[in-house]
Amino acid sequence: MEIKITFLGTGQAVPTAKRNHPAMLLQYSNENILIDCGEGTQRQFRKAKLNPCKLTRLLITHWHGDHILGIPGLLQTLALNGYNKTLEVYIPKGTGRFFNLIQNIFVHRGAIKINLHEVENGKIIETPDFYIEAERMVHETPCLAYSFVEKDRVKIDKEKMKKLGLKSSPALRELKKGVSIKVKNKVITPESVLYTEKGKKVTFILDTAMNSNAVKIAKNSDLLVCESTYLKQEQALAKNYGHLTAEQAAEIAKKSNSKKVILTHISQRYDICEKRILKEARKVFKNAEISNDLMEIKI
Amino acid sequence: MEIKITFLGTGQAVPTAKRNHPAMLLQYSNENILIDCGEGTQRQFRKAKLNPCKLTRLLITHWHGDHILGIPGLLQTLALNGYNKTLEVYIPKGTGRFFNLIQNIFVHRGAIKINLHEVENGKIIETPDFYIEAERMVHETPCLAYSFVEKDRVKIDKEKMKKLGLKSSPALRELKKGVSIKVKNKVITPESVLYTEKGKKVTFILDTAMNSNAVKIAKNSDLLVCESTYLKQEQALAKNYGHLTAEQAAEIAKKSNSKKVILTHISQRYDICEKRILKEARKVFKNAEISNDLMEIKI
Repeated sequence: MEIKITFLGTGQAVPTAKRNHPAMLLQYSNENILIDCGEGTQRQFRKAKLNPCKLTRLLITHWHGDHILGIPGLLQTLALNGYNKTLEVYIPKGTGRFFNLIQNIFVHRGAIKINLHEVENGKIIETPDFYIEAERMVHETPCLAYSFVEKDRVKIDKEKMKKLGLKSSPALRELKKGVSIKVKNKVITPESVLYTEKGKKVTFILDTAMNSNAVKIAKNSDLLVCESTYLKQEQALAKNYGHLTAEQAAEIAKKSNSKKVILTHISQRYDICEKRILKEARKVFKNAEISNDLMEIKI
Repeated sequence: MEIKITFLGTGQAVPTAKRNHPAMLLQYSNENILIDCGEGTQRQFRKAKLNPCKLTRLLITHWHGDHILGIPGLLQTLALNGYNKTLEVYIPKGTGRFFNLIQNIFVHRGAIKINLHEVENGKIIETPDFYIEAERMVHETPCLAYSFVEKDRVKIDKEKMKKLGLKSSPALRELKKGVSIKVKNKVITPESVLYTEKGKKVTFILDTAMNSNAVKIAKNSDLLVCESTYLKQEQALAKNYGHLTAEQAAEIAKKSNSKKVILTHISQRYDICEKRILKEARKVFKNAEISNDLMEIKI
């Protein structure tokens, strides 16, 4: 099935006229999953003509202001606009106190139902169609990267079915279970009409210093969304503040065998020389792009 | 002296693509005074090409989310960008706990110096050039309106001085004290060379139900910035939620003898019919305008 990613914010701590703070929306079937929620994210929803009331889950990478300051306003707007689901919220283990605090900083009008999950590395969500896994990153404060992994699907080759004269769903159900069936004295194996459609994988690596877990979680991603805060000339700063250079983001894409990398978390310092970020990344990994606010990508 | 107002946000609780949450910047001499600070205000500074590091004071009307959720991000950005003054912050009496909470909802990098003032009605700031006064409004939670009042200035009529052959500053100092002087046996009264330039007044009335304090604080304003959340057809809602209709905002302007009213705090519900707001207001008070994000006005 189609996975659509909308970049709601592609800047970092200090916003610029063209880049809001980090937030990305992943849409898949009935799921609307928001990854991080920087200040102003609810307004970015409006600009992208997306309805925040369709949100199903919120995944937070870590508790630096630029990744979470949009939460209280978003929750208030959901309450005001009649949100009637339970919002599933995932945050790094041990940071629940921040989530409780953030809901008490002003005089609210109404509230929505929330399920708070404090999560560590490993599989944190599993449904019949996909799972989401987390992996610990290296930052000043507990920080997680997340992968959305669509499960492989067994599909029917309709052409082959037609040739074999197969129609009935009971027969198909048997084949899907991996059992051969007999039609007109002819044995039909599952392999002869079924095939596996490989699930897609999207990985989100936000604030982190270079580390092997980043390569591990990004393994074989169809799309890697990766922070790229610094240029090579500032690699000492990158290490000091727990961030990646464009080159390092590209290295993660290459080592993890990802198909494509989209760079995000772009610093205000490169506002007038952003092409250099892409140039440095593409030297290491060709299929690299730089994200922009309200950019959409479908895979 | 010139007073410049920049409307950084003109919407309310739920932002729209064209209206951010409430925030207004008043610039006067070396003062940069921010009135309210809704989510995303720091980015509005960037869009307006204004430097938030020039801020001197922050005045908060009340602790509903749309008026304060930009504070933590703004403080973080000031810290990251080397703000080296002490920010004077004014909030309604009894709401200090919110200000303390708001600074602890995420893992900060650095901090700036802040003087927090919990204020009531009356004069809350006084300098040689201006004062600011507050007045209690009627809302769900403690809420203040603010007036910026430039003091009257005694000015010299240079033409008259020339005619009288007056030059020396000691003589002028005497005249400014209100003392007559003698020049070549001729008595010169202060009134003959001095005149008073009336100071200007700008009033900000944000969230409130109709009340007599609103007229009182707006008295003789050169500019009244006034919330206008509802149309007349929703006046029951306005009363219920502690807000004004466009007509009521215009009535305050009229009764207070203000010269001009600019309507703000515009609801998402009127996104496609905003002209009606202005129409209803102008029936009562002609010199009415509707604010837009990044609009500037100089008086």
